[in-house]
Amino acid sequence: MKNSAVFIISILISNIISAIDIQQYSVFEIELTGPSNGNPFTEVQLSAEFSFLNRTLFCEGFYDGNGKYRIRFMPDEPGTWKYITFSNISELDSRKGSFTCIKNTGNNHGPVKVRNTFDFGYADGTPFYPVGTTCYAWVHQPEEIVENTLKTLSKTAFNKIRMTVMPKNYDVYINNEPPYYPFEGSKEKGWDFKRPDPAFFRNFEEKILALQKLGIEADVILFHPYDFGKWNFDKMNTEEAVFYLRYLIARIAAYSNVWWSMANEYDIMRKTDEEWEKYFRTIQKYDPYQHLCSIHNGMAWYNHSLPWITHLSIQTAYLQDIQDWREQYKKPVIIDECVYEGNIPADWGNLTPEEMVNRFWIAWCRGAYCTHGETYIHPENILWWSKGGKLYGKSPERIAFLHRIMTETPMDGVRPFHSKWNKETYLIKDNDYYLYYYGNSQQAAARFLLPREYQFRLEIIDAWNMTIIPLDGQFSGRVEIPLPGLPYIAVRAIRIGN
Amino acid sequence: MKNSAVFIISILISNIISAIDIQQYSVFEIELTGPSNGNPFTEVQLSAEFSFLNRTLFCEGFYDGNGKYRIRFMPDEPGTWKYITFSNISELDSRKGSFTCIKNTGNNHGPVKVRNTFDFGYADGTPFYPVGTTCYAWVHQPEEIVENTLKTLSKTAFNKIRMTVMPKNYDVYINNEPPYYPFEGSKEKGWDFKRPDPAFFRNFEEKILALQKLGIEADVILFHPYDFGKWNFDKMNTEEAVFYLRYLIARIAAYSNVWWSMANEYDIMRKTDEEWEKYFRTIQKYDPYQHLCSIHNGMAWYNHSLPWITHLSIQTAYLQDIQDWREQYKKPVIIDECVYEGNIPADWGNLTPEEMVNRFWIAWCRGAYCTHGETYIHPENILWWSKGGKLYGKSPERIAFLHRIMTETPMDGVRPFHSKWNKETYLIKDNDYYLYYYGNSQQAAARFLLPREYQFRLEIIDAWNMTIIPLDGQFSGRVEIPLPGLPYIAVRAIRIGN
Repeated sequence: MKNSAVFIISILISNIISAIDIQQYSVFEIELTGPSNGNPFTEVQLSAEFSFLNRTLFCEGFYDGNGKYRIRFMPDEPGTWKYITFSNISELDSRKGSFTCIKNTGNNHGPVKVRNTFDFGYADGTPFYPVGTTCYAWVHQPEEIVENTLKTLSKTAFNKIRMTVMPKNYDVYINNEPPYYPFEGSKEKGWDFKRPDPAFFRNFEEKILALQKLGIEADVILFHPYDFGKWNFDKMNTEEAVFYLRYLIARIAAYSNVWWSMANEYDIMRKTDEEWEKYFRTIQKYDPYQHLCSIHNGMAWYNHSLPWITHLSIQTAYLQDIQDWREQYKKPVIIDECVYEGNIPADWGNLTPEEMVNRFWIAWCRGAYCTHGETYIHPENILWWSKGGKLYGKSPERIAFLHRIMTETPMDGVRPFHSKWNKETYLIKDNDYYLYYYGNSQQAAARFLLPREYQFRLEIIDAWNMTIIPLDGQFSGRVEIPLPGLPYIAVRAIRIGN
Repeated sequence: MKNSAVFIISILISNIISAIDIQQYSVFEIELTGPSNGNPFTEVQLSAEFSFLNRTLFCEGFYDGNGKYRIRFMPDEPGTWKYITFSNISELDSRKGSFTCIKNTGNNHGPVKVRNTFDFGYADGTPFYPVGTTCYAWVHQPEEIVENTLKTLSKTAFNKIRMTVMPKNYDVYINNEPPYYPFEGSKEKGWDFKRPDPAFFRNFEEKILALQKLGIEADVILFHPYDFGKWNFDKMNTEEAVFYLRYLIARIAAYSNVWWSMANEYDIMRKTDEEWEKYFRTIQKYDPYQHLCSIHNGMAWYNHSLPWITHLSIQTAYLQDIQDWREQYKKPVIIDECVYEGNIPADWGNLTPEEMVNRFWIAWCRGAYCTHGETYIHPENILWWSKGGKLYGKSPERIAFLHRIMTETPMDGVRPFHSKWNKETYLIKDNDYYLYYYGNSQQAAARFLLPREYQFRLEIIDAWNMTIIPLDGQFSGRVEIPLPGLPYIAVRAIRIGN
C-alpha cells in the first residue's frame, strides 16, 4: 500500500528536444534559468502545456530563487508526452520537449481519488483506506524532532497526515519559531506576501517527499487561524492569498501524495464565503491533477455540496450523523478531528486510547474514515498533534489492526447499515460480508440474521486486544453466538466459497 | 425526599354530612352502593364536584364491582372542602358532604410538577430530582417477584419508575401470563373493553400505593405496542381507549405519585396524530390534578410543543441535543431510555455500568434527567427492565451517589453550559456554583475560569468510585488543578460564604 519514492528529474533545457523516461505519477521537472532582478515571483509569467495524444494539461511554473525557474509535472498515462513553455520572458518562452512516461511499478500508485462515491483508491486502482494522523506543524520543528516524527510514522499504519503550510501558535502547547519563514520580511517590518522564500517551500516539499517515501498522503492545510498575532501569516489579503496558492500549487501539485485541505477550523478565520470560493476556484483552475480537496470546520458547517469539495473533512465528537451526511452529499466522509488521544485539560485532547480506537471503528462501520491525533502532557511540551516527535499512546497499533481489517474487506459494494434507530454500527456487502461492531457495550452474545442461501464463517474480533478468533463450523440464517462480554468486540461473517 | 403513605378513607355515605380530616395530597374516597345489573361501567354515570372557597374541581367516579361505586379525590389545599355527587341513578345522585383538609406532614409532598421551566418539584415546594428506573411489567409478575421488586427498590435512590398498565410480551425476555386481565373475556372469545375487571385495576393501584410508600413516582404507561397478538390489549378502538382512560383516571388520578406516560414507543402503535390528541385531551379533561404528562418515542419524534406535553420523555442513545431541546420546547427533558445496563444481545440493553452512570451524569450536566434500566442475562429470565425482581448491576449505587450530588446543587438558577461546540458538559449557577464533568475522558488536569470577585472551594468528585475529595485552599479566577487522569471525574466549585 506504500508509494514508492518519486523521481525528480531536473533537466537543463536547451533548444533540442530531450527524451527521458519518467515513471507514471512521478515528477518531470523542467529547470530554466532566467532573470533574477525586480520581483521574479510576480513579474515573470511562466507556464507550460503538457500534451498526451488529444489531451493537454496546463501547468504553472515557479521562481525558485537565484535565477532558477521550474515547471513540475506529474504524467498520469504511459506514452510520449510533449510540452511547450509560455512566458513573458523570451528565454523562458516556447521551450519544447518531450519525454516518455512508463508504467508505474512497485509502490507508486499515483494520487488518491474518490472511489465508489464514498471511498478512496489510488489512481492506478489500488484501494486506499485512510487511517490518518495529525501533526499540524511538524515541518516547522527542529531537525531532531522532524527525524523522530518520520521514524515514528514509519512504524505505524498511518497513511495520511494533516499538516499546515504555515507555522502554528496555539495556547501553551506550541509557540516556537519555525526554522524558515514563508515570505521575505519580518513581523516587525511586515511580510512581503509577494516574495515567498524558496527555502521555506523547499523545506516543506522535502517533507512531503519524505512522507511519500513512507506511503503517506500529505493532507496539506493551506490556511489556519492559529497565528494569533505572533507572525500575522493569517493576514494575507485575498489577492495575496491567491498568489500564495498559485505559488504553492506550482511547487507541490505534481507530488502524487498531496491533498488540499483549504483550512483548519475555517470559520474561525472569518473570511467570507466569497473569499473561500475564490480560493477553491484557484485550486480548481491551477491544479492540473485535481487532487482531493476539502475544508475542515470549527463550529460552522461548510456547504459540502459545492463542487470543489471532493470529500467531507469533519470535526465532530459525534459520529451518528455520518450516514446522513453520506446520503446528503454523496461524497466520502473523513472525521478528521474527533478529539485526540491524550490527557491535556482541553476537551479536544483528552480521549482514552480505548475511545480513540472506538471512534475509528464506529466511523468506519458507519461508512466514514477517522483521523488520529495525540495530546499527552509532555515534559518538553512536544505533543504529537502539533509538533510530531514520538507517540506514547496505545491507539496507533490498534488503528493499524483496524487498517488490516479494512484491507480484508471487499473493495466494492460494502455499505454501512442505516436504520432510523441508528444505534447499530455494522458494514454489509449483501450476501458476502457482514461486520458487526458492538462498540463500548458489554453484550455477552451476538444475534443476527445471515442469508439462509449461503454458508458463512464467523470470526470474533477484539478491537482492543487485536485478536481474531475463528469459530468452528459454518453459519447461516439466524445466528446467536457467545461473546466475551467486554467492550470493543466485533463479529465478522464472510461467505464461504466466495 | 420520600412521600408518606397516602390515607385512603372509605366512608359510608348517608344523607348526613360527614366531617373527616384528610391530609393534603392524600386521597378522600367516597364509597357508594348502586346497581350491579346491566353494564354499570357504561350505564351508570357518576361524578362529583369538590369545592374549596371559590374553586371547584370536577372528578369522575368509577364502578368497582359488586355494586360498589367510588369517587376518589386528592385535596391540594388545607381547609374545608365540600362536595356534591352527580349521577343518572338517583341513589348515587346529589350526595353532599364535606371534609377538612389538613396540612401535609412528613414525607407527603404532593404531586410532582414542573418547576423553573426545566426542573421538577413537589406541589409543596420540595425539589424533586428524578432518578428513574424501568420495570415495565413488574405489576404483572408473580407475587414473589413483585415483593422482590419492592424490596430492591427500597434500597435504591430510584424515585420514579416506568411501568405499563397492560401486560407485556416482548421477544424471548417476557411472555408470561399476568395474574389478572384488565377486561372481561379472553383472547379467544374476545375482550369486552367496556367491562374492566376491577381486580386487575385494584392490583395495579395497590402497586402504585406501594411505590408511594417508598417515595417513588409511578410513570404510568397507558399504551404500549408490546402485545404482538398475544392478548390484543393494544387493539382497542378509539372510543374504547377513551373509556379505558377515563376509567383509569377515575381510579388512580387521586394518587399523588401518578405521572401519565401516554405510550412507550408511541410510533410503533401506528395510531394517528388525531387519536393521540384525543387521548391527551381526555387526560386534560378528566384529570383534576393535571399530573405530569408525556409520550415516549420509538423512531419518530412527537411534537413536544403541544400543550398537553409537560415534559419530554425521550428515547435516545445520543445526549448532545439536550440543550437544543430545552431551548426549543422550554420544558424539562427526561431521557427515559438511553439503553440499559446489561449484556443481552440487543443494542438497547448492552451498556456497561460505567456508561450507564456516564449517561446519567451527561444528561444531568446538559440540563436533563436520565432513567435507568437493567438487562442482564438471567438464568430464570427475570430481567429487571421488564419483570423487576433483583438488581445485579453496578450503576444503581452510583446513580444514588449522583442523586446526592443533585440534592446538593442550588435549587434554582442552575443551567447547563451551552456552546455551539457543545462538547462541554457542565452546570453553572453564575457566581455561585460550577460543576464540570469530564465524562469518559482521561484528562490529567482541569482548567477553568471562576469569577475573580469571589472565592470558591473545590472538590474532585469521582462519579464511579463515589468519592468527593475537597482541595485545600481557596480558588478564584483562572484555575488549573491536577486530576486523577481517570474517566468519570467531575470538579465542583462552590462559592465560599454563600
